Amino acid sequence: MSKPQRAIPSVPSGNVEYTAKVKEINERMKAQIPASLRLSESILDNLPVDVTEIPKTCGLLTHHELAITELDATDLRDKLAQGKLTAVETVTAYGRRAAIAHQLVHCLVDFFLDETLDRAKELDQYFVREGKVVGPLHGEQVPIKGRFASGGFLSLFEISKDDCLMIKILRELGAVFYVKTNQPQSINHLETVSFHGRTLNPYNTNLTPGGSSGGESALLAMKGSPIGLGNEGGGSIQDPCAKCGLYGLRPTSNTMPKGGYLHYHKTNDGSVAATGPMCRSARDINLFFSSVRGTQPHLKDQLSIPLPWSVPDKLDRKLRIGIMMHDGVVMPQPPMLRALKVAYKKLQASDEVEVVDYLPYEHGLGYDIIREIYFEDGGATVRGMLEEGGENILPLTEWVISPPHTFEHTVLQSWNLRYRRDQYKQAYLDYWNSTGCDVILCAPFPGTANPHDMARYWGYTAIFNLLDYPGVVFPTGLKLDPRVDVAYESTEAMSEADKYFRDFCKSAAILCDHA
Amino acid sequence: MSKPQRAIPSVPSGNVEYTAKVKEINERMKAQIPASLRLSESILDNLPVDVTEIPKTCGLLTHHELAITELDATDLRDKLAQGKLTAVETVTAYGRRAAIAHQLVHCLVDFFLDETLDRAKELDQYFVREGKVVGPLHGEQVPIKGRFASGGFLSLFEISKDDCLMIKILRELGAVFYVKTNQPQSINHLETVSFHGRTLNPYNTNLTPGGSSGGESALLAMKGSPIGLGNEGGGSIQDPCAKCGLYGLRPTSNTMPKGGYLHYHKTNDGSVAATGPMCRSARDINLFFSSVRGTQPHLKDQLSIPLPWSVPDKLDRKLRIGIMMHDGVVMPQPPMLRALKVAYKKLQASDEVEVVDYLPYEHGLGYDIIREIYFEDGGATVRGMLEEGGENILPLTEWVISPPHTFEHTVLQSWNLRYRRDQYKQAYLDYWNSTGCDVILCAPFPGTANPHDMARYWGYTAIFNLLDYPGVVFPTGLKLDPRVDVAYESTEAMSEADKYFRDFCKSAAILCDHA
Repeated sequence: MSKPQRAIPSVPSGNVEYTAKVKEINERMKAQIPASLRLSESILDNLPVDVTEIPKTCGLLTHHELAITELDATDLRDKLAQGKLTAVETVTAYGRRAAIAHQLVHCLVDFFLDETLDRAKELDQYFVREGKVVGPLHGEQVPIKGRFASGGFLSLFEISKDDCLMIKILRELGAVFYVKTNQPQSINHLETVSFHGRTLNPYNTNLTPGGSSGGESALLAMKGSPIGLGNEGGGSIQDPCAKCGLYGLRPTSNTMPKGGYLHYHKTNDGSVAATGPMCRSARDINLFFSSVRGTQPHLKDQLSIPLPWSVPDKLDRKLRIGIMMHDGVVMPQPPMLRALKVAYKKLQASDEVEVVDYLPYEHGLGYDIIREIYFEDGGATVRGMLEEGGENILPLTEWVISPPHTFEHTVLQSWNLRYRRDQYKQAYLDYWNSTGCDVILCAPFPGTANPHDMARYWGYTAIFNLLDYPGVVFPTGLKLDPRVDVAYESTEAMSEADKYFRDFCKSAAILCDHA
Repeated sequence: MSKPQRAIPSVPSGNVEYTAKVKEINERMKAQIPASLRLSESILDNLPVDVTEIPKTCGLLTHHELAITELDATDLRDKLAQGKLTAVETVTAYGRRAAIAHQLVHCLVDFFLDETLDRAKELDQYFVREGKVVGPLHGEQVPIKGRFASGGFLSLFEISKDDCLMIKILRELGAVFYVKTNQPQSINHLETVSFHGRTLNPYNTNLTPGGSSGGESALLAMKGSPIGLGNEGGGSIQDPCAKCGLYGLRPTSNTMPKGGYLHYHKTNDGSVAATGPMCRSARDINLFFSSVRGTQPHLKDQLSIPLPWSVPDKLDRKLRIGIMMHDGVVMPQPPMLRALKVAYKKLQASDEVEVVDYLPYEHGLGYDIIREIYFEDGGATVRGMLEEGGENILPLTEWVISPPHTFEHTVLQSWNLRYRRDQYKQAYLDYWNSTGCDVILCAPFPGTANPHDMARYWGYTAIFNLLDYPGVVFPTGLKLDPRVDVAYESTEAMSEADKYFRDFCKSAAILCDHA
């Protein structure tokens, strides 16, 4: 067998109409990749599990294109502003690399490089004429006018009549859009498998790129994009960034405009998702946030709050960092715990910070509350969407809309649930204040990137979505090491979910070769 | 007959247990007024409809006490800070005037001047010791630890176990509490009649003081308090302030801390009430807001937003003021329309502003949405509270929980309702931006203070609660003039609600002698 290491599970199926439509959508997508960018059969037949080097070795990209796509968004902004790069060559390089990435990790759901080059030409002409760029951002991907969009179900697949507000703002800032990326069925997975197919982790295609923005994280890890946009209500920015070695910010809700974003629950406002950047450098988070906030989105978006974006001044005391080794529900798997310990030691050695142990405050209770909030309708909307599209339910979708967390609420039960939410949030804030911490550090997920379809606990990110505290993920530079990351320190599971993670860690050890 | 002008309708009734409990509560309240402050029978038997002068003429207050209670909060703050007044003499003067006010307009539900004087003494000792005051606010009333509280129903009447966060903050700022004031059954009236009895408008006891914070507005108008606190989700600050000639601010929600406030709907977060000051001068709004925000309440309250309080700099262009003569649903009654026209002319004469006509954007639709949001449970909670307390429903409570606006929603209907809310808010914001207005001026209610129990339309304040735009009311200095305010300009009603207001304006013309 030529591909022994690849163990990629299947994608959703459905009825006859579903199958026909999905075939059409997939063929349309395939046809969008130009013949000149197709990977040879000899490459495709002999893929390693780590496909991140293939753009460099496949011979389809020039040295110049490879050099451009190695730059982060801040560097690109600078070189564009200095006239050292044109918009056309930048967008072309990224578009070509994205096309290659898609053939390796199935991250895209739409590709429209040719259409978008007209806009890039305009930007270049503006630059020649005015001697400056239109705005700081050239290169992005999100739902846009005239392109197909869906909320995670085939039944919602349709052409968008208008740009959402964020797209309008990014266009004003000079952004150019050339692809759209994959999300999971129902959007509510830390996984990325939908009627568009399954997205793979570029560093190990047997693993998930995370979710729900896993098409985005896979594309970024392949350097097919300099910066991307996620929307997180449970982990959808931080999880895929963590699992693909990226930087990501889930800001406090309503600090970034979400007007016009799609969601099949209209409007479950019990817990509010927040949109933010997925990046390849920490400074790109600042670039994105300061650029968008600089347009004063609160003047255009009914939900946005007029909070200024500022990086705080250095404190006149040590920054107090709490390190949370576990959340009291699921113990981080050995490689994650090792990374936390490395961070602990490094921080302790610094003169600028004070490191303390941070104990979780009833994270299990908080997780139960937000899980109950997600589907107050008992999952009826999800089931209806699936039925309408003739689409079979995936195991992770079934899991997320099942009891005990999911059941049909009356309005009174919903109000009481939200009251419990507010009581919890107040108690947590009081607790937080009692610790005196400025910031805490913890794992974003109990493990490194996991085998497909296994992420059945979101507590490490969901809890801060419930609390609406901002969260940033960043790569540690460490990787799972099977010689070191052998066993848990304790053998006793803290919960059913903990036991689940301990079990799959054992069974999947061979596959887990990348953090 | 000795009291021909007084036409005060009855208060709620109930079953035997209700009647017994209410009797006990009323007797307790009566007994709290010291014998030395009781108004003579000769005064009580010959009350005019305007009772605002009685504190001065009744002979129970000294000249010094009268002088103190004429001052607004800012003046009090200054004189306390300069050592020209002590906390004890200030609180005593206000407490004594409040006791007299209560006998005239039934504004209080609790009176605890003696207990609170200990705190005032501490503040004075602190001042003597430290040469400065603890904080800027000495004098306030809101629900507090160890005092009775209720959410508008006898069934919720109980002793509070703790101060709410706002009280804690105000205490830190040096505030002293000596009374609690009346609110209506269910809180959801622009009226103030509860198991505690009925509060009257001090300027004309045949009229309402507005609601739901009508106990507060009546007390302020009687100068029994320098500053008060309201909580508005439909009109509960602006309406009573407007109807008693006061200043009031309903800020954007979550800019002021509400942690620990009582509400029998826990948590209907479809529309969020906002708490703010009720004052006797415009500058006192600034005093209150800047003092409370200065304590950084967002660090303690899970819902509060860290927005700084600032009075904007003067614009380098004219301020653009839109004047909305009517909301397209209910035409302001003749005296209100006259006041708007006076304001229009005055503003037009100013060099600093540009005045334009502001047309309402589908206010009827917005009003329908927020009315539907208030009782998504179909009013079941309200009916349950009444039943539990053996309390009969009042006509205005029945009105507010009746169809078409009120019916039992499923969670899906609730989500869809909130989606319609967000769509409306976005459309309104787009419209607002298209007008270019910085601020608009309109009536806060279709009429001046109305005869009791007749306020069956809240559109002028409720719409801005739905939109969550801040609103300020202020007195115009004008009063209803039966010689001038004779008839509507047009005879055609815009809606059923409009017809209702036209009819009662005719029938109640004799009573409407104060704006």
